[in-house]
Order: sequence, then C-alpha cells, then structure tokens
Amino acid sequence: MSADIPVAADSPVAAATPVTADALAAYLRAQATEFLRALRQHGENGAAHGTDGSVDAARALRRAARRVSGSLHTFQSLLDVDWAEAIRPELAWVSGTLALEHAYASRLERLLQALHRLSGSSAPPLAPADTGGTAADPTPPARSVPAQAARPERGALTVGAAKAGALLDRQLTLARTRAHSTALQALGSSRFHAVADKVAVLASDVPLTGGAATADLRPLATAAEGRLTDAVAALPLITAGSPYNAEALVHGLSPDPAPHPQDTPWHQVRLLLRLHRYAREVVARGDAPVGVRLLAAGESLDRHRDASEAAAAAAQAARTPRIAPATAYALGVLHADQRHEVEAARYAFQHCWRKETAGTP
Amino acid sequence: MSADIPVAADSPVAAATPVTADALAAYLRAQATEFLRALRQHGENGAAHGTDGSVDAARALRRAARRVSGSLHTFQSLLDVDWAEAIRPELAWVSGTLALEHAYASRLERLLQALHRLSGSSAPPLAPADTGGTAADPTPPARSVPAQAARPERGALTVGAAKAGALLDRQLTLARTRAHSTALQALGSSRFHAVADKVAVLASDVPLTGGAATADLRPLATAAEGRLTDAVAALPLITAGSPYNAEALVHGLSPDPAPHPQDTPWHQVRLLLRLHRYAREVVARGDAPVGVRLLAAGESLDRHRDASEAAAAAAQAARTPRIAPATAYALGVLHADQRHEVEAARYAFQHCWRKETAGTP
Repeated sequence: MSADIPVAADSPVAAATPVTADALAAYLRAQATEFLRALRQHGENGAAHGTDGSVDAARALRRAARRVSGSLHTFQSLLDVDWAEAIRPELAWVSGTLALEHAYASRLERLLQALHRLSGSSAPPLAPADTGGTAADPTPPARSVPAQAARPERGALTVGAAKAGALLDRQLTLARTRAHSTALQALGSSRFHAVADKVAVLASDVPLTGGAATADLRPLATAAEGRLTDAVAALPLITAGSPYNAEALVHGLSPDPAPHPQDTPWHQVRLLLRLHRYAREVVARGDAPVGVRLLAAGESLDRHRDASEAAAAAAQAARTPRIAPATAYALGVLHADQRHEVEAARYAFQHCWRKETAGTP
Repeated sequence: MSADIPVAADSPVAAATPVTADALAAYLRAQATEFLRALRQHGENGAAHGTDGSVDAARALRRAARRVSGSLHTFQSLLDVDWAEAIRPELAWVSGTLALEHAYASRLERLLQALHRLSGSSAPPLAPADTGGTAADPTPPARSVPAQAARPERGALTVGAAKAGALLDRQLTLARTRAHSTALQALGSSRFHAVADKVAVLASDVPLTGGAATADLRPLATAAEGRLTDAVAALPLITAGSPYNAEALVHGLSPDPAPHPQDTPWHQVRLLLRLHRYAREVVARGDAPVGVRLLAAGESLDRHRDASEAAAAAAQAARTPRIAPATAYALGVLHADQRHEVEAARYAFQHCWRKETAGTP
C-alpha cells in the first residue's frame, strides 16, 4: 500500500522550521488530483471491471479519499468548517463503499489459504483477490477449490475442510457480489457525482481559513501523534509482548455472537496510526515522512483487522443451519487459527512499536 | 514431580572425581526401597482408592519404576544383562499401566478447563484430577460441569461448548474407568507380584557385573547426555523460537487421523531428557543433580505431550457419529487451542534449553 512513500527513522514532526498551511494546501490539491486521476482510470476500465487496472484504480481512489478525509480531520482548525464537515462523511462513504468488495475477496482468500495450510497443503487455493466479475456480469468467477480439494491427492482437504471452504466461498462470494453491485451503483449515483465535483474544486482551490496563512501545521500534527501515543499506551502491550499469551482466543466460544470487544481498541489505534501517517506526509512535504517501523506497525494492525474479521466470518458460517459436523469442526479450527493470527499480529505490533519509540529521539 | 530434587546450574557429570558403581548400586537400592514403600502405602489405601494417599502412592510407584528402568538402560554395561533385560519391560509395564488412569483424568481436566477459558469463564470446572472412584466402585464421580454450564450466567458455556464438554467427559471418563480397572487387575496379578519380588531383591542386592567394581559411571552418564543433545540438535528449534510460527497446527485439518508425526521427535527428547536427569541423579549421589532450567525444559515437554494428546482427544471426539454441528465447532476450536499449546510448549522448551546450554561450562 505504501511502497511509494519514502522512509526514514527521524521524526519530521519535530523539525525545527515551521510548516505553513501552504503544505496542507499542496497536499490536499495533490490528493484531490490523484482522486480525479484514479476516477478517470476507473471509468476507462469500466467495461472490464475486475481487471488489474480497475482494481488499481479503485484502490487509488480509496487511498486518496482516506488521505483527504484524514487531513481534514487533523488540520480541521485551518479549514472552512462547513465545507470540511460536509465533505468528510461523503469521502468516508466513498472509501467505505469501494473497500467492501475488496474486503470480502481478501477475506475469502485468507480463509481458503488458511484451510489449505491447516490441511498441510502448500498450494494456494486461488488466484489473487480482486480478479472476479465484469461490469456486465458482476458475479466473480466460480472458485475451483472445493472441486480440487475433493481429489484424494497429497495435500488434499478433508471432507470437512472442503465443505467449510465451499460454504465460505458461497457466503463471501455472495457478499462480495452484493458489494460489487453496491459499489457500481454508488459510482453512478448523483451523490457520488457531487463528491467528485467537490474534489475537483479542491484540486485547484483549498478553502483555508483566514488565520491559516500564519499558522504552523506542526502542533496539529503533533496532536495527532499524541492521540495515537495515548491510545497505544492504553493497549495491553505487556500481555501482547508475551508470546502465546492465549488472550485472543478467550471468548472464542463465548455465547456473545458480537465481534470480540477486546479487538476494538486495536482497531482504533489502527485508524489513529493512519491519521498520524497522513499528518507526517503533510508536514514532511514528501520528504521522508514515515519510518519503516511505523509502516510495519501499521501493517501488523491491518493484519490484526483482517484476521479478526476472518475469524468472525468463520464463526458466522458455523451458525449456518443444517451444516455437517465435519464442516462445523473445520470452521472451529479455522476460527481459532484466525484468532491466533490476531494474537500474532498484536505481538508483531508491540515489537514494531517498541523499536519505533526506542528509535525516536 | 521433582520438587524434592536439589537444584544447581553446574554439571555433576563433568565432576573431576570418578564415580564408582557403588553410586549406582546405592541409587538402585534407594529407588527399589521407595518402590516397595509406595506399594505398601498403596495397599494400605486400597480400601479407599482414589484418595490423595492412593494417588500419591501410585505416583511414587511410577516414579521409582521409571528411575530404576532408566538407570538400567543408561548403565546397562555394568549390570547383569539377563536380569536387566528381564526386569526393564516389566517395570515399563507397571509404570505405563499405572499412568493411564491419571493421564485420562488430567487430559479431561485440561480440556474442560480450556473450554471454560475459551468461553471467557475463569471458574475452574473441576476439582483436581485423580479424585474419583473407590476400589469397590471404580466409577469416578459424575462431573458437574455440563449441568453448571447450562445455567445462563456470566461466563456460561455456549450450548456447543457445554455439549463438547459433556461428550469429552463421557468418553474420557469411560477410558479412565477402564484404565482404573486395568490398573487394579494389574496390581493383583501374578505378573505384578513377580516384579515386586524382583524389586524386593534389588533393594538389598544389585546384580553388578564383575567389571563394575573398577568402572567409572561418568562416561555412561555423559553418553546419555550426548544422546539427549543430539536429539535436541535435530529439533526445529529455530522455528520453535520464532513466536507464532503456526507450525503446530499445520495438519490441523489433515485427512490423516494419526497423531501429528511432527510431535514424535519432541516426545523422544522428553524421554531422553528424563534419562539424562536420572543419570545425573545417579552420579551426583544426591548432591545437586539437576538445574532448574533443565527441570523447566522437562516440564515444557510434559506440557507438549499433554497438549498433543488433548488435541488428539478433541479431534477424536469430533469423529463421534451424530454430534450436533455446534458441538463439532467447539471441538474444532478446542483442538486448535491445544495445538497452539503444543506450539507454546515448544517455544518454552527452546527458551529453557538455550539458557541451559548457555549456562553449562
């Protein structure tokens, strides 16, 4: 996601020179331009939705929308209030709507790969996610896994694992197909066109407040970092740093069908880390904004979120009526496996974070 | 198991003074005497089998039998061959037969506690293992867990977890009851009386070879240590030392119903570590035989074995015909949880072992 961001260990937030609102305006204009470029690219690939080009375009759209929205949040005191409050939820709607199809596809891929790993098979079950469907036929191509798995070959799935894979495939492909249709509808809606119009204006004209001309961005970026630091300080990092603490699977069989409440503060830190990264991008003006360890910390929180949601999907699938016991057993193993991935991601995060904070002056 | 063994970090195997066969004879006599004492204690508690006294006596019997058998193996070149070859399998039969009842009881306890932990309940489900049954009525007392669990209180089990607990309770209690009867029959058999007679002779007269008088025990103890070191060197310790390597659950859904073959070398190291410990006890003549880290390493391998067998029991229970999907799901979660315990135990072992070998001169 961030291969194009230059990396460095030092903290540009602490730089000596003030960073003026010009930097914010330049950043917002650049992201708005990127949004429009991605939108154009997406339109050109519209006839072959699901191709690499259309997937890249949707990702770039989401990426730019998140950066604009995040910057409006961090630097809100320098921007026209009414304008910012009107556009932020709309950008969140765009990125959220576009993210869902990808989320279902990658969740299915993660779960099917885990089923194969748990069956001692190293063969990945699928082509990469985001390859299915066309604009004319939004149904992604049928998965071939369960059929392959039924063959009595080395690394074959058990009946239970194959049935679990087929069930997850059915449920998540259906969800993905719906998300795909919703995204297509959204991109064609007047609501989306209104957002695109606003972003087009932003690409040339950033509505700064009168006081912004003399402002320094650094205290606002530092405040975003402070919100992240505070949220991390509230995480159970000592537990997370003790390998095999078995914390993530507590409630693995809880009667509460809701997602694990223990995951929420980690998800929150993931969002705050993203806001911190964007703020560093703004004040660094493209110059060494984010350290490798901070990127790795963010990636471990992405993995935490993905595993948490995959575990919930396995638990949800197990509640399907009339499934075979072997299917339910495989889903139980899969759920626990993904909850351990959650625990592993927390361990990785605290490791990155400790190194990151140790490296900051 | 080893609270009464004095501990030290130095290696008595490497002591400068030769250790004569007298030390072996004294050790074997002491263990034989302990075997007979435990047997007497077990007989006195016979009318109330399952009491603390009878449990302690059975444990002491197994402990002494293992030490005699292990010492005969390590120092076999100093002992009468025919005698040693005749008594060793008999001692293994005694300790193996007596161990089974305890193994089923503690396996059930481990699994029920895990089910409660996975349900977010901290209340232990059971009194400690080894409390059930009498000589007259070999059936252990009925477990109260599933009934408790059905109550809709905080920390309650889901229906699936409660049913899984009830199923495991039924299967492992049956196995335990059978093991109990088998042990009772064994202790009353002429085969056992023949072993006891041989041990009684050993308590006063150790059949050393003619050459034993001038022998040094240390090279034989060192050879036992070498067999351990070689076996440990063949373990995948680098993988085990990387937290959350997800190695133990590979094959978690494998079509192969046999116990995980990847566990076998670890089980083998567990036995070799025990032989090494006993050899150190012999040559140290009661003086600081075993370091704390070696004890901890042994305990982590006990935990490895227990978790491995508990995981297999959960997988086995899931193959019971006509169970509900919710039960199978809970057993799947439980299986994966115990396989992660296996992985955690390997991590703990490599940690102890690295420290142990770093501390050896």
